[in-house]
Amino acid sequence: MKTKLVLALLATALAGSAIAQVKPEDAIKFRQSGYGFMAWNMQRIKMNVEGGQYNKDEVIKAANAIQAIANSGMGALYLPGTDKGKGWEETRANANIWTDKEKLGKAAMEFNKEANEMAKVAQAGDAAAVGAQLGKLGGTCKGCHDDFKAKR
Amino acid sequence: MKTKLVLALLATALAGSAIAQVKPEDAIKFRQSGYGFMAWNMQRIKMNVEGGQYNKDEVIKAANAIQAIANSGMGALYLPGTDKGKGWEETRANANIWTDKEKLGKAAMEFNKEANEMAKVAQAGDAAAVGAQLGKLGGTCKGCHDDFKAKR
Repeated sequence: MKTKLVLALLATALAGSAIAQVKPEDAIKFRQSGYGFMAWNMQRIKMNVEGGQYNKDEVIKAANAIQAIANSGMGALYLPGTDKGKGWEETRANANIWTDKEKLGKAAMEFNKEANEMAKVAQAGDAAAVGAQLGKLGGTCKGCHDDFKAKR
Repeated sequence: MKTKLVLALLATALAGSAIAQVKPEDAIKFRQSGYGFMAWNMQRIKMNVEGGQYNKDEVIKAANAIQAIANSGMGALYLPGTDKGKGWEETRANANIWTDKEKLGKAAMEFNKEANEMAKVAQAGDAAAVGAQLGKLGGTCKGCHDDFKAKR
């Protein structure tokens, strides 16, 4: 009886870990989605800073979306076996994502830091400060793309 | 001299509004990205509830991402002329999105309400309550898809 219970629990645990597996093509699609949605929000903040009409509420919404995505733990989507493959499109992830963990970790931390700061600055509502912070945040995007994303 | 200044300001304003235009194919891509990223986070919450191992921190991150995207003002991405066209893929937006504003507005409000509630419930950390709230939130997704998204 005890063996049966252990086996049943084991089966449940295995079923759990089976459910917990994100398919490689989905993982690629999900991370492309995260970056794609952040791109919109970066663009929106830029429009507000440069477009002549600053909408504080829109900038806050955009900054909050970037912050939540930045902090969502997207690293989990870089599963083994997702260095090649198609999500929405062929992945442009460079192989060094899976080898240069230290550099990647540093880049991710800088990005998170500037994304969190962006959300704070957006709340304060000073357009010039938002523009300056957008530059810092965008710099962390670009730095990571330069090092870890294939050019078209 | 004054005329020149006015013309210069006008040019700036026009440049601003030109920048402020999101391209139709980008608008479609951005909204597909938003839904795609929420799909990951819905899946993650489901895995935590059903997978036998509940990770409160991961569920909070996932719920926060859904909440911020839900509140980001994605309605702005349903620009005129984006009822057809390709972002990551051909849009599956139904034509009634642009005609049945009242029903759409109601669906969007229900979705936002449940997404905000999901973030609160995730913070509290009770797995069963999270599961129940996931059902409510997922119901608002499905309701909107049934009414406003083309089947494959």
